[in-house]
Amino acid sequence: MLHRLEPLLKKMSRMDIDTFMVSDLHVIRWLTGFSGSNARVLLSPEKNLLFTDFRYGEQVKQEVDSMESVIMQNGFSESFVEGGYLQGKRLGIQAEQVTVHDAGKLEEKLEGVEIVPVNGFFDEFRAIKNDQEITWMKKAAAISEQVLEEILPLISPEVTEAEIAAEISYRQKRLGAERDSFDPVVASGARSALPHARPGTEQFRPGTLIVIDMGCVYKGYASDQTRTFAFGRVPEEARKIYEITRDAQQLGIDWARPGVSAKDLDSLVRDYIGKHGYAEYFGHGLGHGVGIEVHEKPRLGKTSEDHLLLHSVFTIEPGIYLPGKFGVRIEDTVVMGDHGVEPFQRFTKELIEL
Amino acid sequence: MLHRLEPLLKKMSRMDIDTFMVSDLHVIRWLTGFSGSNARVLLSPEKNLLFTDFRYGEQVKQEVDSMESVIMQNGFSESFVEGGYLQGKRLGIQAEQVTVHDAGKLEEKLEGVEIVPVNGFFDEFRAIKNDQEITWMKKAAAISEQVLEEILPLISPEVTEAEIAAEISYRQKRLGAERDSFDPVVASGARSALPHARPGTEQFRPGTLIVIDMGCVYKGYASDQTRTFAFGRVPEEARKIYEITRDAQQLGIDWARPGVSAKDLDSLVRDYIGKHGYAEYFGHGLGHGVGIEVHEKPRLGKTSEDHLLLHSVFTIEPGIYLPGKFGVRIEDTVVMGDHGVEPFQRFTKELIEL
Repeated sequence: MLHRLEPLLKKMSRMDIDTFMVSDLHVIRWLTGFSGSNARVLLSPEKNLLFTDFRYGEQVKQEVDSMESVIMQNGFSESFVEGGYLQGKRLGIQAEQVTVHDAGKLEEKLEGVEIVPVNGFFDEFRAIKNDQEITWMKKAAAISEQVLEEILPLISPEVTEAEIAAEISYRQKRLGAERDSFDPVVASGARSALPHARPGTEQFRPGTLIVIDMGCVYKGYASDQTRTFAFGRVPEEARKIYEITRDAQQLGIDWARPGVSAKDLDSLVRDYIGKHGYAEYFGHGLGHGVGIEVHEKPRLGKTSEDHLLLHSVFTIEPGIYLPGKFGVRIEDTVVMGDHGVEPFQRFTKELIEL
Repeated sequence: MLHRLEPLLKKMSRMDIDTFMVSDLHVIRWLTGFSGSNARVLLSPEKNLLFTDFRYGEQVKQEVDSMESVIMQNGFSESFVEGGYLQGKRLGIQAEQVTVHDAGKLEEKLEGVEIVPVNGFFDEFRAIKNDQEITWMKKAAAISEQVLEEILPLISPEVTEAEIAAEISYRQKRLGAERDSFDPVVASGARSALPHARPGTEQFRPGTLIVIDMGCVYKGYASDQTRTFAFGRVPEEARKIYEITRDAQQLGIDWARPGVSAKDLDSLVRDYIGKHGYAEYFGHGLGHGVGIEVHEKPRLGKTSEDHLLLHSVFTIEPGIYLPGKFGVRIEDTVVMGDHGVEPFQRFTKELIEL
């Protein structure tokens, strides 16, 4: 097992929960290594069990060695009841995962069991990465960076954003990634001002900024990185917002310390952009945790109540987006050490003219 | 708008629901065309509104012309309240989508509003495809089939399952697919007996079956197809289960009629496989609906209560899996016409020896 159970069982005990049902597949992979698409885990001081269906009978044997598994015939709640697997009276569930429908079904099937919805039960544990996880995340970042190096020479007035995006996905997989951690963003022209643009099918036109936001998954763990490039000569204002964004991002890297509040780091960077008159054009948060999900805790934003803890991994990604004109975003994924953060990415942040 | 609202509003009225909150992004895309990753739609007889955040301000203008949009500053429930957007007293929500956490938050914020969880509210409407949807799904299937043709000659003892899977994803995108509809399955040797195997990183070895299950998304709509190939000479039993599976699949295609129960079609095919002694090695359902999701209604399986309606689109995909040895699956996606089904795929089902 990749993670120790004792802290989880202790938290359950503090909350007077006898058994906890894990239904988030990301948590199940984080906890057991199982990567199938249909599973539940029951945690209790007495016994831990992974439930899945026929399709994964062979896979669960290969992937999971830390826990017994049950190949269920019917639904999950039916299996819990039939096998007598529920220990005690209070069953914890993931409030942010279990739907109203499934909670209703559990209540109906599990007579005499009290359902206790808990929000974000695993967040605090998942936010702190161990050495194995950091190794995998660095590998994911390295794959993506190699691909970024490879695809830049392919950008020309003869190709499209969608073609470059396809190259990114293809090459990441060829280099050993399990998959993209999200659909690559390759956004040029006015589309670079859309933080989550879908790659377009028109050819690149010189004189534009190109935002490339990409990442991949290695051994279940995600990477996330953004760089912005100039394709030919770009307007003076494009260079200006590039430099402000780059310096703002560096400020975020330089000032992150263990224990700092995520909101404060966001403010620091946001104020810097505001001082240059572009506050209203930086409309998203400063960053987000990365791990087995590409968006997890901590959240770095105006209203975040999270803190940036030792060994947490998160992005620092300010952007300035001028609607109808162009946009810039620069993003690294960093890990918090004793004295500050170390970015996983090494790719230059000088403005490259392609 | 791709779909008419009247039937939805009529169903709401029958259930005495004043406003319905749509939170499933697939339903939102199905309804409005919006493809962003954060949105809600409020439907009511008076007004329909799409809520999203800053990141999608430009995109929503490009994609949605049938409904006004609101770029919210805080959370969804806050926006509903602040804007006074909630009509009436009873708010329908998607029980199979809204989490226990979010339902609690809605109840807290929306004083005096009664929350009405409804399961599968949109399923019956989504299951019936219109001409536009069928055109897009045929295009998705055609892209995948072209790619399947292209990648077969690449299979050799020098390449790996993962490399072929990467080629599939890449070539589907190059041909205009938005993305894979699921991670391609390329499974050889004993891995072909894992219905959802992750592509391996070892080279192909002759004398094996290779299961290739793949699909892509075009204009938001998915395709899904499986073929099984022989790589070199394969054991007699492999040929035998191939033929049984192929004939079973054809039986499913030949006997599907509008109005037939999904359970009965599943039984017909299952009994055929059982007659040949392999009942226990066909452990999954006969198929599933396909549309804006690659798995949607109807469900074809032993316990399904769905019927196969006119203009519904679903897969017919029996398989026989001999653990530790090899497996076969053959799958088409079909559309129900007046007199039976028409498969979207045309790729041969004779056993090809690569």
